[in-house]
Amino acid sequence: MKAKIYITLKNGVLDPQGKAIEGALHGLGFIAANHVRQGKYIELDVAETDAAKAYASVEEMCKKLLANTVIENYRIEL
Amino acid sequence: MKAKIYITLKNGVLDPQGKAIEGALHGLGFIAANHVRQGKYIELDVAETDAAKAYASVEEMCKKLLANTVIENYRIEL
Repeated sequence: MKAKIYITLKNGVLDPQGKAIEGALHGLGFIAANHVRQGKYIELDVAETDAAKAYASVEEMCKKLLANTVIENYRIEL
Repeated sequence: MKAKIYITLKNGVLDPQGKAIEGALHGLGFIAANHVRQGKYIELDVAETDAAKAYASVEEMCKKLLANTVIENYRIEL
């Protein structure tokens, strides 16, 4: 079963990478772009046929390794 | 208008970061996780009310800065 995980910084957490991208976009003339935030996107296969079990397993992975839950949110799609 | 951009490595392109995550997951006991691929997720606001224009503008940003189209695919959601 394929899982897609989106990891984003929580609101209020500074995002220097996003700011750098925003600056570069403005420098290239894309002045319409604002509030750029960069996150991570992870795809993986879970060897599990039951959706609920797969979700629980991926959530555990997020909490233990993939996301820093102090400053990041995660969203899981199966 | 809020745009969400997903940037992933093309199939066949080596993903050492994904491999490292996979190794770490296995080390933590998540042996069910396989084929881990890491991409980027970017959120931004486009100062544009027309969806087609906003899409075209974001696609231009992807081609010029956000994605390396030689090795990466991008997907845009508005």
